[in-house]
Amino acid sequence: MNNLPVESYSQAQYPVIGSSPRTLKLLIDALENEKEDRLSDVYGTGELIESFQTKVAALLGKESAVFFPSGTMAQQIALRIWCERRNVRKAAYHPLCHLEIHEQNGLEELHGIESVLLGAEDRLLTLDDVKAMGEEIGCLLLELPQREIGGQLPSFDELEAISRYCREKGIPLHLDGARLFEIVPYYDRSEAEICCLFDSVYVSFYKGLGGLAGAILAGDSDLTEQSKVWKRRHGGDLISLYPYILSADQALELRRPRMELYFNGAKELSSKLSRCRQLHVVPEQPVSNMFHLHISLPLDRAASVLNQVCKESGVGLASFVRETSAASCCTEIHIGDRYLSIPQEKLDEALQLLERLLGEAAAE
Amino acid sequence: MNNLPVESYSQAQYPVIGSSPRTLKLLIDALENEKEDRLSDVYGTGELIESFQTKVAALLGKESAVFFPSGTMAQQIALRIWCERRNVRKAAYHPLCHLEIHEQNGLEELHGIESVLLGAEDRLLTLDDVKAMGEEIGCLLLELPQREIGGQLPSFDELEAISRYCREKGIPLHLDGARLFEIVPYYDRSEAEICCLFDSVYVSFYKGLGGLAGAILAGDSDLTEQSKVWKRRHGGDLISLYPYILSADQALELRRPRMELYFNGAKELSSKLSRCRQLHVVPEQPVSNMFHLHISLPLDRAASVLNQVCKESGVGLASFVRETSAASCCTEIHIGDRYLSIPQEKLDEALQLLERLLGEAAAE
Repeated sequence: MNNLPVESYSQAQYPVIGSSPRTLKLLIDALENEKEDRLSDVYGTGELIESFQTKVAALLGKESAVFFPSGTMAQQIALRIWCERRNVRKAAYHPLCHLEIHEQNGLEELHGIESVLLGAEDRLLTLDDVKAMGEEIGCLLLELPQREIGGQLPSFDELEAISRYCREKGIPLHLDGARLFEIVPYYDRSEAEICCLFDSVYVSFYKGLGGLAGAILAGDSDLTEQSKVWKRRHGGDLISLYPYILSADQALELRRPRMELYFNGAKELSSKLSRCRQLHVVPEQPVSNMFHLHISLPLDRAASVLNQVCKESGVGLASFVRETSAASCCTEIHIGDRYLSIPQEKLDEALQLLERLLGEAAAE
Repeated sequence: MNNLPVESYSQAQYPVIGSSPRTLKLLIDALENEKEDRLSDVYGTGELIESFQTKVAALLGKESAVFFPSGTMAQQIALRIWCERRNVRKAAYHPLCHLEIHEQNGLEELHGIESVLLGAEDRLLTLDDVKAMGEEIGCLLLELPQREIGGQLPSFDELEAISRYCREKGIPLHLDGARLFEIVPYYDRSEAEICCLFDSVYVSFYKGLGGLAGAILAGDSDLTEQSKVWKRRHGGDLISLYPYILSADQALELRRPRMELYFNGAKELSSKLSRCRQLHVVPEQPVSNMFHLHISLPLDRAASVLNQVCKESGVGLASFVRETSAASCCTEIHIGDRYLSIPQEKLDEALQLLERLLGEAAAE
C-alpha cells in the first residue's frame, strides 16, 4: 500500500494528532526536576529502574514488571517464554498484529515461532475464532484496542469469555496493551481489572502517554525473571535505560489522568468528521482516543485536500494518507493534548473548508 | 568465580577508574548545548541519527554505519549476516569473548549460531589458532584489546597476517572494537587504519569514551542495510535513540583526543603498582588505558585491604575484586579523566599504604 505524507502537517499551527512534537524538549522536560547526582540504573538494577517497575506492576495488578527498550522486544520475549513452557512453537494473533506486520518477521527469524492468524483483517478476532484454532498453541495474543482497524475493542463480556476459555484449556493469554491506558475510560475498568484477564501484559509509554520510548512487560515473577535473561540475549539490557524510564514516568503521571478527555475528544472529532459525505470513521463510535478516517478519494487527491486545509486554516488534521483502493485512502487520528488546545472556531473553520474541498475534489 | 565489591569505593574522594560517576549528569550535560526544538530521530531516520552515523563511518574508514542501542545487539547481528552469507552457522572467537560469557548464549538461542572457541582463556588467539580452525566458519571475531585478559593486543604485524589469511580464505573478519579508540595510541595507527583490516566493526561509546550507552556497527552498505532489518527484528529500532546518540557524540569529541593521556596513565599506575610484592599487572606493560591487577591474597582479605586504603587515603583503586583461586584474586583498572585529576601526593600516599597493608595481610 502506498503512503503519502501531508506535506504541510509539520508546519501546522494546530496539529490535531498526539500531544507534542518529537523534539528534544520531551527529554529536557523529563530531566527538569531531576537531581544531577541521581544514580543511573545499571544493567537492569538500581533504585531508578526497580522503583518504576514496582510502580507499574502494581498499577497493572501484576506480581512483577520489567522495563524494556521496546515493545517489539518485550512481546517476542513473552511469546518465546510461553511457547517454550507449552513446548509448542506457535503463537496465535490477529492478522494485523504488530508482530505480523511491523517486526520484519522477528518472531520466526529469531525465535522460530510460527504465527497462527485468527479471524480476518477487517474485523476483531472473536471467541469463535479462538475456539476454532485448536489447543496446539503456545500462546494467544490479544491487542486492545486493535490498532490497525482503527482501534476497535471487543465487549468486555467477550473478553472475559476468551480469557475463561484460555484458562480452561491452559492456553497462556498475552495482552498487547500498547494502548492499554487509552481504553480504560470506555471499558470503565481499571488497568488492573483489564489485565487480570491476561497472564502477561505489555504496555507502551510513547503512544497515548506521549513519552520518549520504552515498554513494560508484566506478569508473574517466573515470567519476568526469565524475561530478563532474554532481554540480555536480545541486547536490550542496556547499562542505562534511564532516559526512557524518566520520560515514561513523567508521561504516565501527566497523561494517564487525561485519557477520558482524549476519549471524549476522539468521539467529538470523529462525529464532526463523519458529517462529510466523502468521509467515514472506523470504528463508527471510537472506543479509545483513536480512530481511522477513510476518505473516498484517490490517494493523491486526498493528500492534496488535507494539505490545502492545513495551509489555509492552520489545522493539521492528518500527517499522512494511505491508499486502500484506487479510489480511496485512510489516515489515523489519535487524540492527545494538542487537540484539546485547538480553539473551537479554528477547528470548525478547518472542517468547513475540508467539507467544501472534498466536495469539489469528488465532483472533478 | 566469586566477586566482592570494595564497599567504600562509591564514597571515595579520588576514585581511580573511568571518567565520571554514572549519574544523570551525563545526560544533562549531553543536552546542555542542544536546542529544545531539535527534531528526534524517528525509527532510524532523521538528521540527528544519520549525521552521526555518517561521521562515525568516516572516522572508521567504512562505507556506512548504523547506530544500535547495544553492542550485544550489533555484534550478534553482524555475525548472523556473515554466517548467512557463508551459509555456515559457526562463528569463531576467543573463549572469553563477550558473546561467550556475557550474553546468556544469545547467539545460539536467537540465531542458531554455534561458537568455535580459538586459543585459550589465558592468552591471545594467534594466526596459528586461526589456521587450525579450518575454513568451515561463518565469521571470525577478534576483540581488540582482549578485555578479559587485561586488555592485551597482538602485534600489528600479527593482526595484518590474520586479516590477510582471512581474505585469502574468504572468511569474514569482524572487529569487536568496544575499546577501539583506546588502542589507537599503542598501535600508533588511526581507527581507520586498524578497521581496514576488518570487514565489519563494532565500537562502543560508554567504555573509555564514557558516554551513556550505544554502539555503532560499520561496514559496507549491504551489511549495514541488512543490519537495519535485524535491528528491527531485535526490537532495537526505537522510535527515538537520541539520548544515546547525543551522549555518544559528546563523549567522542571530548575523550577521543585524550586516549594517549589515558594510555600513559595506565602505564604509570601499573608500573607503580607492580612494585608491591603481592601485586602483578596483566599485561605487564599496558597497551591501552586498561590492565588487570592480580593480588596474591584470598578474596576477602584483598577486599578488606582495598577498602581500608580507600577509607584512609580517599583513593579508590578498585571497585571490586574477583576470585581467581583460593589464594588470589584480581580486579580491572581502566584509566579516564578521574585518574588524571588525582593529586600525585595523594596517589603516592595511597600506594604506600597499600604496600604496607598488603605486606601485613600476607604475613598473617
